[in-house]
Amino acid sequence: MPRAVCLLSGGLDSSTCLALARRQGYQCYALSFDYGQRHRVELEAARRVAAALGVAEHRIVRIDLRAFGHSALTDDWAVPKGRSAAEMGREIPITYVPARNTIFLAFALAWAEVLEAADIFIGVNALDYSGYPDCRPAFIEAFEKMANLATKAGVEGRTRLRIHAPLLELTKADIVRTALDAGLDPGLTHSCYDPAEDGRPCGACDSCLLRAKGFAEADVADPLRTVR
Amino acid sequence: MPRAVCLLSGGLDSSTCLALARRQGYQCYALSFDYGQRHRVELEAARRVAAALGVAEHRIVRIDLRAFGHSALTDDWAVPKGRSAAEMGREIPITYVPARNTIFLAFALAWAEVLEAADIFIGVNALDYSGYPDCRPAFIEAFEKMANLATKAGVEGRTRLRIHAPLLELTKADIVRTALDAGLDPGLTHSCYDPAEDGRPCGACDSCLLRAKGFAEADVADPLRTVR
Repeated sequence: MPRAVCLLSGGLDSSTCLALARRQGYQCYALSFDYGQRHRVELEAARRVAAALGVAEHRIVRIDLRAFGHSALTDDWAVPKGRSAAEMGREIPITYVPARNTIFLAFALAWAEVLEAADIFIGVNALDYSGYPDCRPAFIEAFEKMANLATKAGVEGRTRLRIHAPLLELTKADIVRTALDAGLDPGLTHSCYDPAEDGRPCGACDSCLLRAKGFAEADVADPLRTVR
Repeated sequence: MPRAVCLLSGGLDSSTCLALARRQGYQCYALSFDYGQRHRVELEAARRVAAALGVAEHRIVRIDLRAFGHSALTDDWAVPKGRSAAEMGREIPITYVPARNTIFLAFALAWAEVLEAADIFIGVNALDYSGYPDCRPAFIEAFEKMANLATKAGVEGRTRLRIHAPLLELTKADIVRTALDAGLDPGLTHSCYDPAEDGRPCGACDSCLLRAKGFAEADVADPLRTVR
């Protein structure tokens, strides 16, 4: 079985992406980050999902993105609530964490090189997303090109590294259907940016609203109960 | 004064690169990494150099590259000694740290975004180097392209991020001359991969040998005293 490094936040998208990698026959190495996120509870979801999907190994790397700050996900800024899809699409929201996916993919690249894996999976999505620059297809393509120049494998021409983003063109409803189809229990995942003390999702941040829209459009009940 | 993020290991190359950025009129933000390197003494050199060159700020970010291992710089592997230039050029040495420059540049990108800086400096060198894939011009170019797609600035078309690698085409002798010319005291820097307990350079690893070659060819005495 070929090996793949799979970025796993514990959210619905990255968990679905991991389920797809497994279904495609990869031996999966899940990689999560403890990066100073306020919604650290997502790491527990990542652990549950990694265990349920039977990964070969799950690593949680600690990095301090709070040192640079500048995001509602790492700072004491208020997470926007109750925004419409049109409002979400208008500009890059303050939940954007500077260069986050670049940093995550760089670590995935390091691990892939050590494992001699040629495949990296990331659950970014360019349709029902929050307007993050590092979720666009052009970014993924450019990272793949760079990755093949950055590493030993690329120089020696042994392997061609591929960055897989199988959710890129899916709607949230498609992702819900794909998750169920690939055998993922969405109740294990966590999507909220601003969860209650007990870990329950707020139901009103961009991430909760996009998730709710996805389940509604797929005509499936979300096993997660929100605060409101 | 425009701001620039400057990667600074404390070695001769990155210190010279910082001196050049300062001379070009940038307000410099120096970024170093405590990444589990055996030659952690280089961080003290980074502090000395940052202070001597009057940076606006110096941050040392802690990341654990030992978690992935696989390099003589982070593991208990023997650092190669006494190799000729031909031997160094033949293959990628075991001192190569998987995806290190990709990870360092990704963090620099995050900080640049927060500072609204459009310029990042890195002291990589493609001539008298150790054969690392992530020191080649094609890698730097590909990273720059990716960086402009990864960030807010790139999306909004506000700024065009530039990765400066002013030492790329210099020989080690050129770098020694450039350092002196830009007002850097090479005695503050540290290049050795395998220093003695007291911090003195071994004089025999690839990095020490390349440094010695540079000083010899520039006909300048290195203020650093090696063990042998």
